[in-house]
Amino acid sequence: MSLVCLTDFEAHARKQLSKPTWDFIEGGADDCLTRDDNVAAFKKIRLRPRYLKDVSKVDMRTTIQGDEISAPICIAPTGFHCLVWPDGEMSTARAAQAAGVCYITSTYASCSLKDIVTTAPGGLRWFQLYAHVDRQLDKQLIQKENTVPYFQMSPIDPSICWDDLSWFQSMTRLPIILKGILTKEDAELAVKHNVHGIIVSNHGGRQLDEVPAAIDALAEVVAAVKGKMEVYMDGGVRTGNDVLKALALGAKCVFLGRPVLWGLAYKGEHGVEAVLNILKNEFHTCMTLTGCRSVAEISRDLIQFSRL
Amino acid sequence: MSLVCLTDFEAHARKQLSKPTWDFIEGGADDCLTRDDNVAAFKKIRLRPRYLKDVSKVDMRTTIQGDEISAPICIAPTGFHCLVWPDGEMSTARAAQAAGVCYITSTYASCSLKDIVTTAPGGLRWFQLYAHVDRQLDKQLIQKENTVPYFQMSPIDPSICWDDLSWFQSMTRLPIILKGILTKEDAELAVKHNVHGIIVSNHGGRQLDEVPAAIDALAEVVAAVKGKMEVYMDGGVRTGNDVLKALALGAKCVFLGRPVLWGLAYKGEHGVEAVLNILKNEFHTCMTLTGCRSVAEISRDLIQFSRL
Amino acid sequence: MSLVCLTDFEAHARKQLSKPTWDFIEGGADDCLTRDDNVAAFKKIRLRPRYLKDVSKVDMRTTIQGDEISAPICIAPTGFHCLVWPDGEMSTARAAQAAGVCYITSTYASCSLKDIVTTAPGGLRWFQLYAHVDRQLDKQLIQKENTVPYFQMSPIDPSICWDDLSWFQSMTRLPIILKGILTKEDAELAVKHNVHGIIVSNHGGRQLDEVPAAIDALAEVVAAVKGKMEVYMDGGVRTGNDVLKALALGAKCVFLGRPVLWGLAYKGEHGVEAVLNILKNEFHTCMTLTGCRSVAEISRDLIQFSRL
Amino acid sequence: MSLVCLTDFEAHARKQLSKPTWDFIEGGADDCLTRDDNVAAFKKIRLRPRYLKDVSKVDMRTTIQGDEISAPICIAPTGFHCLVWPDGEMSTARAAQAAGVCYITSTYASCSLKDIVTTAPGGLRWFQLYAHVDRQLDKQLIQKENTVPYFQMSPIDPSICWDDLSWFQSMTRLPIILKGILTKEDAELAVKHNVHGIIVSNHGGRQLDEVPAAIDALAEVVAAVKGKMEVYMDGGVRTGNDVLKALALGAKCVFLGRPVLWGLAYKGEHGVEAVLNILKNEFHTCMTLTGCRSVAEISRDLIQFSRL
Repeated sequence: MSLVCLTDFEAHARKQLSKPTWDFIEGGADDCLTRDDNVAAFKKIRLRPRYLKDVSKVDMRTTIQGDEISAPICIAPTGFHCLVWPDGEMSTARAAQAAGVCYITSTYASCSLKDIVTTAPGGLRWFQLYAHVDRQLDKQLIQKENTVPYFQMSPIDPSICWDDLSWFQSMTRLPIILKGILTKEDAELAVKHNVHGIIVSNHGGRQLDEVPAAIDALAEVVAAVKGKMEVYMDGGVRTGNDVLKALALGAKCVFLGRPVLWGLAYKGEHGVEAVLNILKNEFHTCMTLTGCRSVAEISRDLIQFSRL
Repeated sequence: MSLVCLTDFEAHARKQLSKPTWDFIEGGADDCLTRDDNVAAFKKIRLRPRYLKDVSKVDMRTTIQGDEISAPICIAPTGFHCLVWPDGEMSTARAAQAAGVCYITSTYASCSLKDIVTTAPGGLRWFQLYAHVDRQLDKQLIQKENTVPYFQMSPIDPSICWDDLSWFQSMTRLPIILKGILTKEDAELAVKHNVHGIIVSNHGGRQLDEVPAAIDALAEVVAAVKGKMEVYMDGGVRTGNDVLKALALGAKCVFLGRPVLWGLAYKGEHGVEAVLNILKNEFHTCMTLTGCRSVAEISRDLIQFSRL
Repeated sequence: MSLVCLTDFEAHARKQLSKPTWDFIEGGADDCLTRDDNVAAFKKIRLRPRYLKDVSKVDMRTTIQGDEISAPICIAPTGFHCLVWPDGEMSTARAAQAAGVCYITSTYASCSLKDIVTTAPGGLRWFQLYAHVDRQLDKQLIQKENTVPYFQMSPIDPSICWDDLSWFQSMTRLPIILKGILTKEDAELAVKHNVHGIIVSNHGGRQLDEVPAAIDALAEVVAAVKGKMEVYMDGGVRTGNDVLKALALGAKCVFLGRPVLWGLAYKGEHGVEAVLNILKNEFHTCMTLTGCRSVAEISRDLIQFSRL
Repeated sequence: MSLVCLTDFEAHARKQLSKPTWDFIEGGADDCLTRDDNVAAFKKIRLRPRYLKDVSKVDMRTTIQGDEISAPICIAPTGFHCLVWPDGEMSTARAAQAAGVCYITSTYASCSLKDIVTTAPGGLRWFQLYAHVDRQLDKQLIQKENTVPYFQMSPIDPSICWDDLSWFQSMTRLPIILKGILTKEDAELAVKHNVHGIIVSNHGGRQLDEVPAAIDALAEVVAAVKGKMEVYMDGGVRTGNDVLKALALGAKCVFLGRPVLWGLAYKGEHGVEAVLNILKNEFHTCMTLTGCRSVAEISRDLIQFSRL
């Protein structure tokens, strides 16, 4: 069986995983409109390829928060990888290290942070923190991070608000990156509060249904940020064309959620590597065919904004 | 059998009710384009959720015509409840009272007004008056309302017109609320004639097909009224997201038609309560996830008006 | 078997007629995109009904070219009625006379003009002239019209052009009405050449595919004509709502093509009368529910031109 | 079996060809969105036919690069015709010569250029050059063209860029035409570099998926070129209406890809002639019914740019 694109891995995982595990991974909020729109919205965007540029050398490397990655394709935080593959997040971490990309470890990882760090000591890691009502727990999580250089946070304590950011900022010198922003208003507040980055995300359509597809919200957030911090996105990335579209609309890199779990379900570490490599190859081809020699050359001009 | 959302109640009612009763409830005018569009139009609207607001306390309470209701989710007038459940409108009235919301009793109620009032004496009630050619009948209906504090009217006498409003206004000091307005022109006339409110409605798509979905007509009416009276809406509300969208577009509260009958068909009073509670819970979740601490914070900014 | 709307007659005719006859009637050019769009385009238009107007009396009467008709619903020219009912156009003519509407007799009628006139001497008739290469034939056809008071023409001689109109105008004092105009440019030429009316039509989608639906072309033609002549339309009218939409967009009356043949196939004269009466009843209801007391009150304001 | 339109030839070829050959012809990049959009985009464009123009004589002739062709319908470069019919490109060349249209021979022709020239010595031919890394090979290919009067090129050496054009221009006095341009930026560069024409093309959707349909990209390129060179297009042309739409939007002629192979698969030379003749007949009818007496009369006014 040869899996040649990410949706092949999806079909394989659907067959292989137990129904409860598959349902947990695949599920979305309510009618799954946003989950499905994450993918469909990419397909509606048309590319404007450029012609007769010397693309004999194409360089996919870029940086996030100053660290180099081999391509702008990283791993979003998802929980409970041991449901899908025996050594769970340890496999994921090794694959990310091998591929030279960043892996955001979830608060809900099913392996210990220590094991994850030990198995892939050279990998670039960020940590997703859900803000808990018990702030001591948060403090402990943050102060273990001498093991992870950056962290990214999503509220789970419903009382958390912009004013609480200063407490987190006092706990750590790590850059703080907010995940889940979809509006220009919040993007402007993020700039004002001196956070270091934004991940435009609707959490894979698993939280609130009927919000915009991540790629549709990206341009608004990018415009509001005015280059004052890096903007990333997750949600619906399935092909190399999708990666290029996200970068053309202003993302510094994209993060993969479900496709990583499909790869993990296929062959653990090697399955995740396969998913990352397929996507990197597709992205390389797309850069070549649109005339982009480096990620710096990927601009808004590659997107068609109107039709006949 | 566990019914967890309003469409579960619909599926249940479709199985349980006799075909003539189901057809009577479900029917729409002509090709049912407007009936179906009432629901579909809500689904096309995208929300813009706000982030990092303290939503540890969310308050759904609001008022209509000065009276407090527990949430902006009330019961629209529909007729002949005894077709669906033995004690018909009496069950509906008790459920509305228990849920702390308003119940608009139909001219075509299958229980007497006296029985409805007796069974739920503390409930907030409005009365729907169809204007009859025999004005004495109207007068009798109005003057029984020492039992219902407000009434709302729909024309059935084809000769009734704006000039006749003064006759009704002379009969009663009750506020008069017009149901069925879909245009800015009529909204402006309603302001001019000193009525107390408007229910934007196409009567569940049962009257004239190919008119706009209620939620699509709402913004035009709200803009024309300029805050001079309260505007409500019915038609197509099925989820908590729908309620929030209607309020974001200017409705003071929404009214439920068919879903109440589905609840009634399931378990009478307790089925209607279940429908109301599910919708209230969903609305609470939606307020939390969009960052709204009170209904006063639900504004147009929560709606996405354009896309990429 | 009870036929209650025009599509019921369509379904009946599909079953009853021989396949070649049905195919001849139902056929359209190429992929039938325009034929189908004629119907679908009406369904996309939303009505803006007005409220609280005295509609106890609704008057559907109007005039075309100065002659009164009972409703703005007449019969378009179609050929070979004898394929569908033994005495063909004679039945159609009697039905039109009984209903008080105009019947445009086709050049390709399968009954003689004399028989048509004899069987329904009091009916309002127009005559469709295909301009033939042999102008003497045209002359004969025109000069038989002492039997039909008006005529309408469509080119079949491919060399016919605007300059030839003067020859036709010299042959007859009858008003000349052009059928098949779809653009503002031609509407302006029609005004300049002193014709008496325009029928906006794509010939039921039978001639050139991929032209606009008739109802979509109507507004452009009406705007260009600036009230200097009457504008009619045919194509896709199936319900009373459709009639009202066409009038709201500026048509003086609509003409029916295929539905008349469906009626004829059902019960000859009585079938055509049934089709006309159903449509008149639906139009009456639509006028009532949108608040129009006369056709003069049907204006563009009844059409919704934008949505949320 | 009577094949009356191009999609009949498609259906026939699908049945007759071996699956690998059919798949090779029919294939597109990735999800084939652009391949399918090439056809679908034509269908969304509506025509504005003109009325009462003398179309007794319709002249389809035009010129490309100064050479007369019988109609603006020529043959795009596709490879390996021998897969479909024994004597491959020789049949294609004879059909093109018989029909009086231009045939662009592919670099990947399965017959020798010499055989193609010998079998159809009087035909108008262009040559498609893939730029190879070995420039000597290119030079040899170009200098054989004393047998083909023009050539057209597509990059296959990924390092080729605008600056390399001067080398090709130094090798030949033949006009150079660029195939595959989809943007105004590249159209402007083509003008600046003094090439002689552009073929707007996405290579049948076989190269990069999710780029615009060729007909959707045409208007942008035409506007940028400002009449300084001829613009052609290929991709999705299946009917005479499509040809007229492309010309109305500014193409000097269209080129056919897959339909030629379908014709070849049917009956070799005679099948290709049949395809060309059907399309020419349809185009003649479309010119007649839209009121165009010559290709010079086909203008943007024939296209509807907005609807109700």
